[in-house]
Amino acid sequence: MSRRTVSHEEGAIYEFTPGLEGIATVEPGAELTIETRDSLDGAVQSESDVIEAVPEEVNAATGPIEVEGAEPGDVLAVEIEEIRLAEEHGRVITIDGFGLLDGYDEIDAPWTKLTPVGDDRTSVRFDDLEVPVDPVIGTIGVATAGESYTTLVPHDHGGNLDTTDVTGGNTIYFPVFQPGAMLAMGDCKAAMADGEMCGTGSEIDTEIDVTLEVIDDPASPLERPLIETPDAWKTVASAETLEEACERANMDAIELLAAEHGFDPTEAYAFSSLVGGLEISQVVDPLVTVRNTVPKSYLSSPI
Amino acid sequence: MSRRTVSHEEGAIYEFTPGLEGIATVEPGAELTIETRDSLDGAVQSESDVIEAVPEEVNAATGPIEVEGAEPGDVLAVEIEEIRLAEEHGRVITIDGFGLLDGYDEIDAPWTKLTPVGDDRTSVRFDDLEVPVDPVIGTIGVATAGESYTTLVPHDHGGNLDTTDVTGGNTIYFPVFQPGAMLAMGDCKAAMADGEMCGTGSEIDTEIDVTLEVIDDPASPLERPLIETPDAWKTVASAETLEEACERANMDAIELLAAEHGFDPTEAYAFSSLVGGLEISQVVDPLVTVRNTVPKSYLSSPI
Repeated sequence: MSRRTVSHEEGAIYEFTPGLEGIATVEPGAELTIETRDSLDGAVQSESDVIEAVPEEVNAATGPIEVEGAEPGDVLAVEIEEIRLAEEHGRVITIDGFGLLDGYDEIDAPWTKLTPVGDDRTSVRFDDLEVPVDPVIGTIGVATAGESYTTLVPHDHGGNLDTTDVTGGNTIYFPVFQPGAMLAMGDCKAAMADGEMCGTGSEIDTEIDVTLEVIDDPASPLERPLIETPDAWKTVASAETLEEACERANMDAIELLAAEHGFDPTEAYAFSSLVGGLEISQVVDPLVTVRNTVPKSYLSSPI
Repeated sequence: MSRRTVSHEEGAIYEFTPGLEGIATVEPGAELTIETRDSLDGAVQSESDVIEAVPEEVNAATGPIEVEGAEPGDVLAVEIEEIRLAEEHGRVITIDGFGLLDGYDEIDAPWTKLTPVGDDRTSVRFDDLEVPVDPVIGTIGVATAGESYTTLVPHDHGGNLDTTDVTGGNTIYFPVFQPGAMLAMGDCKAAMADGEMCGTGSEIDTEIDVTLEVIDDPASPLERPLIETPDAWKTVASAETLEEACERANMDAIELLAAEHGFDPTEAYAFSSLVGGLEISQVVDPLVTVRNTVPKSYLSSPI
């Protein structure tokens, strides 16, 4: 069966809202290739191209893709099969007013470095250093419940999660807030550190192979994104501070552990303090993002 | 050669100060077995033993151990060969006023669960669940530069770092602030999640095999602890907020990357945003702790 392609040239959004309209409609089970443009819309093609301030429109997310039959209360599963680089270089940049060390005297902003893609596309170069390609979808989400969020912001609908586990081989699950779910994604990186400290990874155009499924009777209602890796389940939460995001991600993990093992909340809290744990996704966006990992040996199929 | 044993019964401290006096003196290269008691000094032996408030004395650290020839400006390397459990059960507890979810209605405090050690000592039990033993030295450090810190607090001297990478097979490096370094350690866990959310792991008595070395002409001056794993170097920083700790750990990683590759700070910052990244150690102590991981492929021998 040939995959259907949905390209950013057909449509891309800069804001997740409750009232998104699809540019493509697919059935549950659809296998798609989604083409994304880099987070800066191609504005940085040489090291003299610098970005003076965070653009009003950034992190273009290809879509929205309407999934037939997805209804509020359902869960949308996005199985990410593969992310392929689709241009010859990525770019890592600093922007004045943005990034973990924004305002430090030692750090120049704006500033740009190109990261050329190696011949076999398994590495990018940073000066003389080779960095293995380990792609990340930075921005991915669905139509929101009520508020609207630009594609710079992560929240319960997903959005700018900048989470390294949103990569090939993993599945990300979203609560469906609106009919059709209205999935969109973009802002990919060839490689990114946990934290995304300078505010970007190696930003790059990609092609993403995904399979979409709708879970219409989830075992647990999902309030926020949840990631499945081969070995673990990871709750994902965004908030004003890392501490608040930790609390939320931990509470979500506690609920899943309690449901599976019949723990009361205190038992689940104590158990969560023994295995897996809290991980930093990103510390640079308007809300920051944390995940709480629980090994699959302790959580079978939480949704 | 037989290892010398240093036991908590010979001496243990509850505060890291500039003026610590050794209970044992060893030469560089010394191979030691250090016996530690659990963080609660044995006060919790059944599930009816609960801890009402954080004790004034907690996290007893066996030592101090004076290392001959260690002088301010040197680096003390503590190679951790193995951590063995030395009692039949650990305990995971909540304490009112302590922990990530302290004050949440759903969470009971004080509360205690015993975690019995399995017959082959490779797992502990939490109710019916088996948790693999993956020991952590919670509190480890040296005499301080000026301020004093109780063993509840992590800072530049080490202390209550509660960092899962402080485990067998890894080496932790400390700046030497006082003659003899004055190493002490305790507060071990049979297992702990990154974050240590409820405020403890599975707290337990242990025997720790270590080898101590003094590096008297470090390539980079060390201001804070640094961890070496088989695959990575990890800067470790503690601060009032996770955000501040992230900044400090990232700045330290940037300095190491700049020294190795001749990067300017901005290049090192951007490169640090592509590989490894920020990790949460603990979110519950009076200062919180974060590490910045850099794969060894990009940092050979930074100190």
